[in-house]
Amino acid sequence: MTVPPTGPRVCVIAGGVGGARFIRGLRSHLDGTGATITVIANTGDDVWLAGLRVCPDLDSIMYTLGGANDEGRGWGRLAESERVSAELDAYGVGWPWFTLGDLDLGTHIARSSLLRDGLTLTEATRRLCARWDLGVDLLPVTDDDVETHVEILDPLDGAVRTIHFEEWWVRHRAAVPARRFVQKGIASAQATPEAITAVLHADVVLVAPSNPVVSIGTALAIPGMADAVRATAAPVVGLSPIIGGRAVRGMAEACLAAIGVEATASAVAAHYGARSGGGLLDGWLVDTVDATSASGIEELGLRVRAVPLWMTDVDTTAAMAAAALDLARHPVGDRAR
Amino acid sequence: MTVPPTGPRVCVIAGGVGGARFIRGLRSHLDGTGATITVIANTGDDVWLAGLRVCPDLDSIMYTLGGANDEGRGWGRLAESERVSAELDAYGVGWPWFTLGDLDLGTHIARSSLLRDGLTLTEATRRLCARWDLGVDLLPVTDDDVETHVEILDPLDGAVRTIHFEEWWVRHRAAVPARRFVQKGIASAQATPEAITAVLHADVVLVAPSNPVVSIGTALAIPGMADAVRATAAPVVGLSPIIGGRAVRGMAEACLAAIGVEATASAVAAHYGARSGGGLLDGWLVDTVDATSASGIEELGLRVRAVPLWMTDVDTTAAMAAAALDLARHPVGDRAR
Repeated sequence: MTVPPTGPRVCVIAGGVGGARFIRGLRSHLDGTGATITVIANTGDDVWLAGLRVCPDLDSIMYTLGGANDEGRGWGRLAESERVSAELDAYGVGWPWFTLGDLDLGTHIARSSLLRDGLTLTEATRRLCARWDLGVDLLPVTDDDVETHVEILDPLDGAVRTIHFEEWWVRHRAAVPARRFVQKGIASAQATPEAITAVLHADVVLVAPSNPVVSIGTALAIPGMADAVRATAAPVVGLSPIIGGRAVRGMAEACLAAIGVEATASAVAAHYGARSGGGLLDGWLVDTVDATSASGIEELGLRVRAVPLWMTDVDTTAAMAAAALDLARHPVGDRAR
Repeated sequence: MTVPPTGPRVCVIAGGVGGARFIRGLRSHLDGTGATITVIANTGDDVWLAGLRVCPDLDSIMYTLGGANDEGRGWGRLAESERVSAELDAYGVGWPWFTLGDLDLGTHIARSSLLRDGLTLTEATRRLCARWDLGVDLLPVTDDDVETHVEILDPLDGAVRTIHFEEWWVRHRAAVPARRFVQKGIASAQATPEAITAVLHADVVLVAPSNPVVSIGTALAIPGMADAVRATAAPVVGLSPIIGGRAVRGMAEACLAAIGVEATASAVAAHYGARSGGGLLDGWLVDTVDATSASGIEELGLRVRAVPLWMTDVDTTAAMAAAALDLARHPVGDRAR
């Protein structure tokens, strides 16, 4: 018999590398408390490459929580090699600038095989995660193929072209301005029942300090997700991925520029919006350097708190998670407590 | 403009490892003569494994002629590693007893990707071979999925079971008696136009010293192939894969036993039959140890010659190929020359 969890149910909406680090801190903070963590991961970066389904965000989270990620490089598997990719390159198959490690390819081959056997991405992810001791339930936001594409002006001929997000991000390092992002397949996609249930039945919903456009933005754009976040009885608290006007990780500024949002903690909070005003958040954690500038967004109906947000190690990140959960326990207008 | 070949067109019907070695010797013998070599390879050992199309015979030939095979082990890629397979094993995907090397997996991933892009196996094989300098045109016998399965009595419960040939060959090492072989998919399959044309337009057709049942037998069972061999104006000469009552390579005796053919050079020749009697061969090379016992099969209408048939090195194998081509130049009844 399965004993139902007795602790709070924490649901996290997250992207890849930054999301993974945050969840690792959250897991550390909640260790031994009986709390359960359900992670809803963005799948917009996913790509079929050489016939294999690559899910960068799901895998970053799985590897990081499984203790198998390359901490030095910040992504991918520890002790990785690239022998298979060199073969693909020699055969002229795949993207030469998108090198998949051998160990990582094991994950993609296994997942693709499970998908072709008829499993949903949710089921395949559970099968892959069973190998690791994650301590969280990892869910893709959707079982449908939704892929973020980027509209650019081709620097060679000035023509408008649409390329896969990974091509823009990895090959062009987001240096070619994005005109807009297009989520291919989103019209017929839907958030999974598991993801929606996790949001609706949560005691707390956290929005990880992930890319607000292509990670959190895409996850929330999947039909059903934003409605669930608006409808849940749980408080929803986000953590700013922007510190002092710069993205904590990656090239998120280029993504924000494409949608006309300033790269500040306040602008991102305003972009998400307050649930009291039809938006998505009840609370917003900013870094201490943004304390003064962010105080104005309380007028939106958001409870704001400033704490150190650099995820330098697990303990620091655990403290961030603790602050986010604490903020969630204190609803708007309950500032005195 | 392509200059048409001026030398003889040699067509070889072959299985994997033994076939590859023979073709390497043939290529060496014909080097610089202007002759062209077209290889028609068995595809009955092929298998979809973890969503990847594995073609052992095509790859054995490609690697051996490309100089990339592991000579010590006798199969697979030189300097191979098995990191990806260990991952698949950890995820519980694939066959744990069928370990695919990392470099080899590069081939399978590339091929599967090309097939999913809509290429035929013939086209995909050409694309893969373009990387190597093979000196032969390598063709699968069919573009259709035809897979050899083996009917066995399960040693655990005595029930009749049908398993993939690779499971019988690799996992059980052919130690569980085969009741019969079943070519799944053969009814709706056909030999490719390229393979049939190669046989019909050849100046010489050679049957490599490969497994007479699951390699040559399966290739010739593909609808269209045996008819082409019977119809071609070219002489057809086979090389015995049995020397002194034992198979040169592998466990071919177990395959012959399943179809009720004695493991002798003569019995295999009789199994193939003489073209003059509706069979497939005009000539048959046996090893010198089988010279006396094989002389009786000349009555079938086969021209028989005995030469050393151990493929110990390239030069020895080149001499075998020379003897086969020489036999082809001397039709039945022309013994005095």
